[in-house]
Amino acid sequence: MAQDSDETAPAAPRLFTPGPLSTAPEVRRAMLRDWGARDREFLDMTARVRARLVALAGGNDDFTAVPVQGGGTCAVEAMIGTLVPPDGKILVLQNGARGKRMVDIAERLGRAFRVMSWSEDEPIEAAAVEAALAQGRGVTHVGVVHVETSSGLANPVAKVAEAVAAAGRRCLIDAMSSFGAMALDARGMRFEAVAASADQCLEGVPGLAFVIADVQAIKGSAGNAPSLALDLHDQWRAFEATGQWRFTPPTHVVAALDAALDGLAREGGVLARGARYRHNCALLRRGFAEIGFKPFLDEDLQAPITLTLLAPGDPRFEFAGFYDRLRRRGLVIYPGKIGQADSFRIGCIGALGEDDFRTLLAAVREVLADMGVDDLTPAVADR
Amino acid sequence: MAQDSDETAPAAPRLFTPGPLSTAPEVRRAMLRDWGARDREFLDMTARVRARLVALAGGNDDFTAVPVQGGGTCAVEAMIGTLVPPDGKILVLQNGARGKRMVDIAERLGRAFRVMSWSEDEPIEAAAVEAALAQGRGVTHVGVVHVETSSGLANPVAKVAEAVAAAGRRCLIDAMSSFGAMALDARGMRFEAVAASADQCLEGVPGLAFVIADVQAIKGSAGNAPSLALDLHDQWRAFEATGQWRFTPPTHVVAALDAALDGLAREGGVLARGARYRHNCALLRRGFAEIGFKPFLDEDLQAPITLTLLAPGDPRFEFAGFYDRLRRRGLVIYPGKIGQADSFRIGCIGALGEDDFRTLLAAVREVLADMGVDDLTPAVADR
Repeated sequence: MAQDSDETAPAAPRLFTPGPLSTAPEVRRAMLRDWGARDREFLDMTARVRARLVALAGGNDDFTAVPVQGGGTCAVEAMIGTLVPPDGKILVLQNGARGKRMVDIAERLGRAFRVMSWSEDEPIEAAAVEAALAQGRGVTHVGVVHVETSSGLANPVAKVAEAVAAAGRRCLIDAMSSFGAMALDARGMRFEAVAASADQCLEGVPGLAFVIADVQAIKGSAGNAPSLALDLHDQWRAFEATGQWRFTPPTHVVAALDAALDGLAREGGVLARGARYRHNCALLRRGFAEIGFKPFLDEDLQAPITLTLLAPGDPRFEFAGFYDRLRRRGLVIYPGKIGQADSFRIGCIGALGEDDFRTLLAAVREVLADMGVDDLTPAVADR
Repeated sequence: MAQDSDETAPAAPRLFTPGPLSTAPEVRRAMLRDWGARDREFLDMTARVRARLVALAGGNDDFTAVPVQGGGTCAVEAMIGTLVPPDGKILVLQNGARGKRMVDIAERLGRAFRVMSWSEDEPIEAAAVEAALAQGRGVTHVGVVHVETSSGLANPVAKVAEAVAAAGRRCLIDAMSSFGAMALDARGMRFEAVAASADQCLEGVPGLAFVIADVQAIKGSAGNAPSLALDLHDQWRAFEATGQWRFTPPTHVVAALDAALDGLAREGGVLARGARYRHNCALLRRGFAEIGFKPFLDEDLQAPITLTLLAPGDPRFEFAGFYDRLRRRGLVIYPGKIGQADSFRIGCIGALGEDDFRTLLAAVREVLADMGVDDLTPAVADR
């Protein structure tokens, strides 16, 4: 609730969370006005955002960006439901919660599916995928997650996409936690579609997601979707025919993304943003290691998006108290989501500077002292 | 794009459109900060919004509000897909575009359905519904639209709901264009669920919708939904179990709705807001009639939300030019959506005052003079 009569933002904590995250003031200020959903000005903004998203994926006229109302899960569901036909079959490559969600979606939508799994600290192996596809079994599509938000692991998505394309199958990528900061380039990679959202590496606000897809695949997908709201084909057709959204768009969230894309361009694009995030991530890994924490992932598997740290086994450490003490200092971190061990997560992304990460590290030291936790050795994992 | 470095809002037009609409500055200012999606402060806000939505529907502990990421269509699809079981059958009462959309949803989701239709300038007749339900035919649910956004017509939803309940069926209401300004009270009406969104009579920003449903019905709906993202049961269960959203919520849009609900309370609630809208609507009907326009609906069918006016048959009138001339004056109106005749629409809702509506009427006179349109007689309808 903003009850102040002046234009200043209410006090807000710093978010060390991988989406929603801390956004830049100009991104939030872009929401200070209203847009007519069918007005030229807003339609121009929509067209501009769509074109910029395609460009970020290295796509040319062969690709199109289809924004979807709602969150990232809506986009992934729209992608699978629309591009995998009712008689298709999707092989989902799973090593974390986002991969599991792709499986859940395929199952709910009644699409035939198969799953290949790896443990949460192992990357997907392109060679194993290649071998599996060589056996056939009617698989038409392969679903893969670029960065597993649950662990922070970067999968070798380019190699996987190459193996999929070489086997004549179609690759659907969940790039929710990488798009905008890690290269995913249609010029050097063959994929059919990639789903992502406004509120992670693009540093917009949540409430809007999108699928960037091969135009021919979208054209051929009429009637596939078992949903009206999440029909990517019909959504695309409306944009192409009239420039309009089929149903009420989240106008303010679109405006925030437009401003966020300005910010990405000012920063120097995907490579520059990725470099900043890698710097943040290295600083955090080093800083937490100095304190005594053990990261869940080896450094070569770590995407510069989310750092998962193992919780100390010391009974004086409990996450809720740790969280609350940091929260009282205006610092918001994220609970863990891996199944293998107790953990918590720190986002390396968003409109935060080096000072913010140093503030967090100092606060973590203080809070641990406060809690009387001095042994940071992780508990032995259950498995 | 907000490129100004100060905190003032960029120049924005006034929206005479029935959602998205002109919002109050404090609603937009509520989006000037970021929230952690799993942080207590945001979860408290979510709980507060949910409780206030139930209260607005006159619901007690027997009802629950389930917010849904995305727009109103997502909420209607979630409501039908989750509450009508796979072996259920929905009778949709249709006299406009929103009713047609309910039919499209039922068809896409593979639910058995039946349709009763009326013309766009006729209200749904409760007696006819009663007679149809008496015949049986396996109907378990009835879908009805409170206010048809396409025409502006108010259906007698209380009578319909009574007929449905008396016949032992379950009533699902699309109240997108009425919720917050027209009474829809669970104490005096028997319905199973009502779907609405943040960006119409509640005067929030678009990107969030919700279903207010009978708790027992929600409890009994596990496994029904043919969607992961739009599963109302699982969404509800997560809120109840942990207070958390299953998937990333549109944090800023939720904050804007929270501020908008403050505004609704300050105004005096649903009755006061409804009275203001009726005043706006009467002023517009009278003003347009004085200019010479003919409204599509008779006054007794008119909801105080959207006024549909018949386009003049005069060949010098064309909507695009009319729209653009008003737009250059900072006034945004809405194209027509009825099938029976050329028309356009004016929203009576939003954070606009009497002066704004008078400004619009004066501008319409000027623009017509500008276009050389002096005969406002509508073209003869095609049917």
